[in-house]
Amino acid sequence: MKEVSLTTHRRTEFINITSLIQDALTRAGAGAGICFIYCPHTTAGLMINERADPAVVHDIGSFLEECVPENHPWTHAEGNSPAHVKAALIGGSVQVAFEGGKLLLGRWQGIFLAEFDGPRKRKIWLAIAS
Amino acid sequence: MKEVSLTTHRRTEFINITSLIQDALTRAGAGAGICFIYCPHTTAGLMINERADPAVVHDIGSFLEECVPENHPWTHAEGNSPAHVKAALIGGSVQVAFEGGKLLLGRWQGIFLAEFDGPRKRKIWLAIAS
Amino acid sequence: MKEVSLTTHRRTEFINITSLIQDALTRAGAGAGICFIYCPHTTAGLMINERADPAVVHDIGSFLEECVPENHPWTHAEGNSPAHVKAALIGGSVQVAFEGGKLLLGRWQGIFLAEFDGPRKRKIWLAIAS
Repeated sequence: MKEVSLTTHRRTEFINITSLIQDALTRAGAGAGICFIYCPHTTAGLMINERADPAVVHDIGSFLEECVPENHPWTHAEGNSPAHVKAALIGGSVQVAFEGGKLLLGRWQGIFLAEFDGPRKRKIWLAIAS
Repeated sequence: MKEVSLTTHRRTEFINITSLIQDALTRAGAGAGICFIYCPHTTAGLMINERADPAVVHDIGSFLEECVPENHPWTHAEGNSPAHVKAALIGGSVQVAFEGGKLLLGRWQGIFLAEFDGPRKRKIWLAIAS
Repeated sequence: MKEVSLTTHRRTEFINITSLIQDALTRAGAGAGICFIYCPHTTAGLMINERADPAVVHDIGSFLEECVPENHPWTHAEGNSPAHVKAALIGGSVQVAFEGGKLLLGRWQGIFLAEFDGPRKRKIWLAIAS
């Protein structure tokens, strides 16, 4: 199991971690297989979506802000229940195949850490099956 | 493929199945690898989120109740379309790496069966790659 | 890595691709293992839910149409941000175990391509670990 660390800078933020993941895969030296990417946090998630235009992940974030309101009758005393809900909706793991040591992503796809309760230090775990 | 069975007790309920999964993994005797956990039902799902404070999964459930209304113009005659929608949003499988026979979860994480159309008997399937 | 192609016919559409995936698995000749199914697109996803009554996936689609509005202050200039959001909520990959060359699905489950920005030609990627 490999670990990648990063720092987020805003409350809600989608950080393109594609090159971080590719670098870790390259360091592992594996040729072909599947890379399992896992978020060990409960107020952040992992998402694959468009990397070409940053407006796309901005729009996904602004939708989630509107859909999951701050003023619901939340019971969790820490006050960050909306972040837990958003993480549950987006999901916490993705899997990407690789060949020739390169992640096989669609033309417009990037891998994003979805931060919903930042800023924080976050970790991503990778398991590589080759 | 291993199967774990459990009974749910309410219409909407998040049941912490972490120890059930760990027990099945221990019985399988595998050292290191990835555990694929799969829900074969269409009105329940699997979710990884905070296990420390039960208020978190309560809040995720109460959000879904509000977000997916009972009074939408549903067409499915069985009347449980909201449960199918919630299962689609939460997802039906998770994967967790393990080392030394122990599931590698984040500090606050637990694995939950997300019941949206209970009470029922439910099954969870495990495939272990080691 | 195997590729399956298909054409979608409407803006929002859930296409049952279970037999397409099973056929690709059969052609690969694998006995037992896990099939990783991946959508390389950013405005479509993959979902496992009920295949018996098509009203179920219709209802999931009509909920998403209502939940993710066309008239939100979207910033992505292409105008298809709702499709990106829906794809992010549904997710872009599923994994299904198989034994004796047959996908292990629950009794009512089917695998669906979830099209949110059709009609289009779409591809599905399969990685088979056996």
